[in-house]
Amino acid sequence: MPKHKIGIVGATGYTGSELVRLLIDHPDVSIEIITSESKAGTSFSKINPHFKGRIDMKLEPLKNLADHELDLVFLALPHGVSMDFIRDWNPDDFRVIDLSGDFRLGSAEEYRQWYHKKHKAPDLIEKAVFGLPELFRDQIRNARLVANPGCYPTSAILALAPLIKNEIIEPEQIMIDSKSGVSGAGAKAKQQTHFPEVFGNFSAYGLLKHRHTPEIQHNLARYAQKSTEVLFTPHLIPIDRGILTTTYSTPTKDIDKEYLGEWYYSFYEKEYFIRVVDDPPNVKHVRGSNYCDIHVTYDERTNKVVTVSTIDNLVKGAAGQAVQNMNLMFGFIERSGLEISPLSP
Amino acid sequence: MPKHKIGIVGATGYTGSELVRLLIDHPDVSIEIITSESKAGTSFSKINPHFKGRIDMKLEPLKNLADHELDLVFLALPHGVSMDFIRDWNPDDFRVIDLSGDFRLGSAEEYRQWYHKKHKAPDLIEKAVFGLPELFRDQIRNARLVANPGCYPTSAILALAPLIKNEIIEPEQIMIDSKSGVSGAGAKAKQQTHFPEVFGNFSAYGLLKHRHTPEIQHNLARYAQKSTEVLFTPHLIPIDRGILTTTYSTPTKDIDKEYLGEWYYSFYEKEYFIRVVDDPPNVKHVRGSNYCDIHVTYDERTNKVVTVSTIDNLVKGAAGQAVQNMNLMFGFIERSGLEISPLSP
Amino acid sequence: MPKHKIGIVGATGYTGSELVRLLIDHPDVSIEIITSESKAGTSFSKINPHFKGRIDMKLEPLKNLADHELDLVFLALPHGVSMDFIRDWNPDDFRVIDLSGDFRLGSAEEYRQWYHKKHKAPDLIEKAVFGLPELFRDQIRNARLVANPGCYPTSAILALAPLIKNEIIEPEQIMIDSKSGVSGAGAKAKQQTHFPEVFGNFSAYGLLKHRHTPEIQHNLARYAQKSTEVLFTPHLIPIDRGILTTTYSTPTKDIDKEYLGEWYYSFYEKEYFIRVVDDPPNVKHVRGSNYCDIHVTYDERTNKVVTVSTIDNLVKGAAGQAVQNMNLMFGFIERSGLEISPLSP
Amino acid sequence: MPKHKIGIVGATGYTGSELVRLLIDHPDVSIEIITSESKAGTSFSKINPHFKGRIDMKLEPLKNLADHELDLVFLALPHGVSMDFIRDWNPDDFRVIDLSGDFRLGSAEEYRQWYHKKHKAPDLIEKAVFGLPELFRDQIRNARLVANPGCYPTSAILALAPLIKNEIIEPEQIMIDSKSGVSGAGAKAKQQTHFPEVFGNFSAYGLLKHRHTPEIQHNLARYAQKSTEVLFTPHLIPIDRGILTTTYSTPTKDIDKEYLGEWYYSFYEKEYFIRVVDDPPNVKHVRGSNYCDIHVTYDERTNKVVTVSTIDNLVKGAAGQAVQNMNLMFGFIERSGLEISPLSP
Repeated sequence: MPKHKIGIVGATGYTGSELVRLLIDHPDVSIEIITSESKAGTSFSKINPHFKGRIDMKLEPLKNLADHELDLVFLALPHGVSMDFIRDWNPDDFRVIDLSGDFRLGSAEEYRQWYHKKHKAPDLIEKAVFGLPELFRDQIRNARLVANPGCYPTSAILALAPLIKNEIIEPEQIMIDSKSGVSGAGAKAKQQTHFPEVFGNFSAYGLLKHRHTPEIQHNLARYAQKSTEVLFTPHLIPIDRGILTTTYSTPTKDIDKEYLGEWYYSFYEKEYFIRVVDDPPNVKHVRGSNYCDIHVTYDERTNKVVTVSTIDNLVKGAAGQAVQNMNLMFGFIERSGLEISPLSP
Repeated sequence: MPKHKIGIVGATGYTGSELVRLLIDHPDVSIEIITSESKAGTSFSKINPHFKGRIDMKLEPLKNLADHELDLVFLALPHGVSMDFIRDWNPDDFRVIDLSGDFRLGSAEEYRQWYHKKHKAPDLIEKAVFGLPELFRDQIRNARLVANPGCYPTSAILALAPLIKNEIIEPEQIMIDSKSGVSGAGAKAKQQTHFPEVFGNFSAYGLLKHRHTPEIQHNLARYAQKSTEVLFTPHLIPIDRGILTTTYSTPTKDIDKEYLGEWYYSFYEKEYFIRVVDDPPNVKHVRGSNYCDIHVTYDERTNKVVTVSTIDNLVKGAAGQAVQNMNLMFGFIERSGLEISPLSP
Repeated sequence: MPKHKIGIVGATGYTGSELVRLLIDHPDVSIEIITSESKAGTSFSKINPHFKGRIDMKLEPLKNLADHELDLVFLALPHGVSMDFIRDWNPDDFRVIDLSGDFRLGSAEEYRQWYHKKHKAPDLIEKAVFGLPELFRDQIRNARLVANPGCYPTSAILALAPLIKNEIIEPEQIMIDSKSGVSGAGAKAKQQTHFPEVFGNFSAYGLLKHRHTPEIQHNLARYAQKSTEVLFTPHLIPIDRGILTTTYSTPTKDIDKEYLGEWYYSFYEKEYFIRVVDDPPNVKHVRGSNYCDIHVTYDERTNKVVTVSTIDNLVKGAAGQAVQNMNLMFGFIERSGLEISPLSP
Repeated sequence: MPKHKIGIVGATGYTGSELVRLLIDHPDVSIEIITSESKAGTSFSKINPHFKGRIDMKLEPLKNLADHELDLVFLALPHGVSMDFIRDWNPDDFRVIDLSGDFRLGSAEEYRQWYHKKHKAPDLIEKAVFGLPELFRDQIRNARLVANPGCYPTSAILALAPLIKNEIIEPEQIMIDSKSGVSGAGAKAKQQTHFPEVFGNFSAYGLLKHRHTPEIQHNLARYAQKSTEVLFTPHLIPIDRGILTTTYSTPTKDIDKEYLGEWYYSFYEKEYFIRVVDDPPNVKHVRGSNYCDIHVTYDERTNKVVTVSTIDNLVKGAAGQAVQNMNLMFGFIERSGLEISPLSP
């Protein structure tokens, strides 16, 4: 079978380079073009020296995209830039997996409210499929435009989906306390991510107004067909990769703690990338891999269900999940190119 | 005025060495003896080389304590060992500040339930004063035995006390999501704290059964005179020092967000070591100091009060608070020896 | 072609688990047995939870080795334990790659001098081949016993080999200043590797007497056929993985700086895993991979040749190099199973 | 005695805020003014929130300096900006301690060669005293302009001074391998100091051309009255604070290893801030303090003297040393305000 041709738009960010890491080892696709406006003409491994000897193609300007007969394009662009691309895109040309937040919410209004800008391709918001394969697999298979989930939402939604779907918890009283490594803030240097400021530190940020709040709410609701309200608090862990999310919710009925764990296990039994674990997981056990580890328990005293889930924010929380979506869209084996052991210690 | 004479029992742990750091700069006390059974005869700065040139006294066995006319003894011993000492202690000899968990709970029964061992000095549990100066100042002044609070409880109780005391939140539905640096686990090497295991990692541990749960509950209840139930989830941050605690609770009444912050500010206005801050605090802004920074806000959508508080677990969460208690007990200026700028970056 | 059968002796250390990571993805071998005396009966992924779902075989006692018709055994044992195994080994049974230091030096006398114990299989020391494929490829192909190089020596010898071999530098005046991540100290918790001690810290250790000194000297000499003397200073970097080695040496002749770099490039041109780089390399650009990056320059003022080289101590410095050796011994493509992109950021 | 009045020019960098940390606790001086052009009007603790409650004065523009009758001004400005200030400065107005590199070299020519710009106050270069108190104490006492040493040079010069001064080593064959925490690169975010790039990493930089090379050479020569040549290689440690410097040099005569250590001890016996230590030191044992720990040894095999020295780059390597210089200039006790225990763990 000839390899499927793919393009990567936006090569200088962390999701772009992580896509390259996964796709150069993928047996069934070939990277035809990687674009960068600011670095066009430079070789990809000049920008990302760790790839020297692995991939040495030159970065090209976006306009060259049309020179290749691409089957699929990954958009590794910032929020707000993706929708510019999509607005001008002809869905018949190639399929798109967008790794930005531009097509993950429910409406242009919601987008404006949380992203503080006007959406430029509002008619495509509803057509985009939320690319969380474990929950929306069938829709992803046929999608032309996949909105690849955010990192925090992936960790939170996968942990909460069984509870919401089966009406085990109150859907409007969910607390989500997330902690993320710094690569989630992107590859561009900022004062808040200056090494001496973050090293030895730990902080909460974006209280009550982080953009992943509506993304979690909307897509949990979309999956479970019921309205949800979540309180989402992100924190910055002084590490490079990894998200751990702890959630607290109130049951709607009597809970048998033993049974709860077993039931999670069976809920995700056929999912290769979900590992329901007996002990609280840690982020290093998923580093570099596409796994999501989930632990669930129940506290009788306060009558709360507690989940703890972990992902590598750049893999299951971004590039890995994008490749998983691509596999579904192309009819490949879903885990193709993604059977990677976590790097620990 | 002649200096007050103090002794430190247990010098090889982190709280012991942190007590020394603070007390050698204290203007009104002198360290007469530092004990260590395993290292008796060795100089303190041999065990803790960073103190070379600062303090060179030799460690002595516990039995030498009686050779000094001490005014006060700090017990920097593990849980379970402190109560052995206290059982044999004559309260007329000297006052005691115990930095272990042995005298922080409400009863011998509660102790047995959470610490899984029988209490050996049950009659003194009620006589011990919980050494959180901002809440129990008057009792501390006259105490013979002070139970110095745990690190997590200090960060949680100070953040929640205003809400509980004034019946602003439901006292039995409190979620406490805490994150601590690794020095909180003590100075002794363990497999879980082996550097390559913790580095680049983040994890939850002790779910639902951490011993600080009843300590928080009991002392919030003691302060506010009402029953409380908390769900406490500790996490391990891959740093040396610092605790950040995020709490979620449900109001009992309508909340005005603006007013809430101002009211916290006035609640703690006279407290030198409590800084109510407008932005979510971070642990490096209190590193090495006795400050507790607290931020409070309210989420209308989910109707929750959120607090974020930070301390240095070895200072306000252990040795610094112990010195603050000592200052009260001796009638010194409360912040004497504790006016230390945080070390940042 | 049926897969070659391999065994791993010693599964609880970092080199053991890293061997598993590489070998489960290797197309031409199958892991038949993993041994551990202390954990026999337990599943490998119970000890190393990040492998859950990747490999779930049970650990077996060493005596079960004979039950499998193995082609090759990796010894991931501590120094001193490997030679016990080798003493009893029949070279006709299977080939061996020993990852300990027991067979890397020149003689039993040298071993006793630096390891402070008597060698138990002295007759095999000379028969063992030093498993640095770039320098000893032909001998490795036919070896029954390969002594897999230490992590520091790999980084130092590969950087210095071109200079020594071609008599460009004085061979008895070489200074080697190495810096290593903490996983090099092994998986077992020790007081020196307790997280709060290492975090935020940096130190030199083992001055003048580290065991890798004679390993570097002996094997540089073996390769270049001339006597060498090196001064080796190891330092501990507060990270999990990675070694960076800086060397200083004195030229024997006039040096053209431009030419020096080009000449290094051509010296290693055919070596897949050696990347001669124009800028000083960093350890994260090789993390998780089998690459060794080398930079060389010359300082006219002080008349010194300077090299900077980097490896992942657990891959090119241990398990990856062992797999590379295995590939040579089995006549596989040398990079089979080792074409792994570094994990960065 | 009325307090001496001091000003700090440049408050937004790390050396500026570290000066504040030390000076607000100094018994004999008062901070009259802190300047910042970009942040004038803002309170200092708004920029540096960890100082909230410690110091709340407003930042002022530079022109306000004349409004205060200052005794001494600290210049915490970038290289190149300090000399602008000095060019316009009247030495009769107040004394100056300049923490930049502008007045540390031997001549305007040397400055142009290494800093690639023309010096604007060349006549003052010779008048400036190099502020390393242990070596230039008498000159500092009477200086109007002190050039406060760089961080790397402080660690290297203090380690090498005894050897050079007493002609124990060849002065033109010195190798200096230094490793520094990231705060040495300043408070301003850059791509190279973006957290995910530095975390888990280690690298060499500035090979052969770092500006501290001539600073070390020139001031060692100035002290020992003989020409020196050094090869200086800086490396970046992924921590916030701390420098460790390893040096290698060749003896001019026979060395007795035992004696060497004792002789170092006596050389620095009266220096409060120099601790000659028996074991190789580590950076955490000096964190936050003004100590410089030095270890010396000798390798017979390669005939090399090796030193390992550590400082906190922001204290003994910058602000602490500046305060020590100030104490000398004002005739205070030299360690006044600097008796600070290192913060460990």
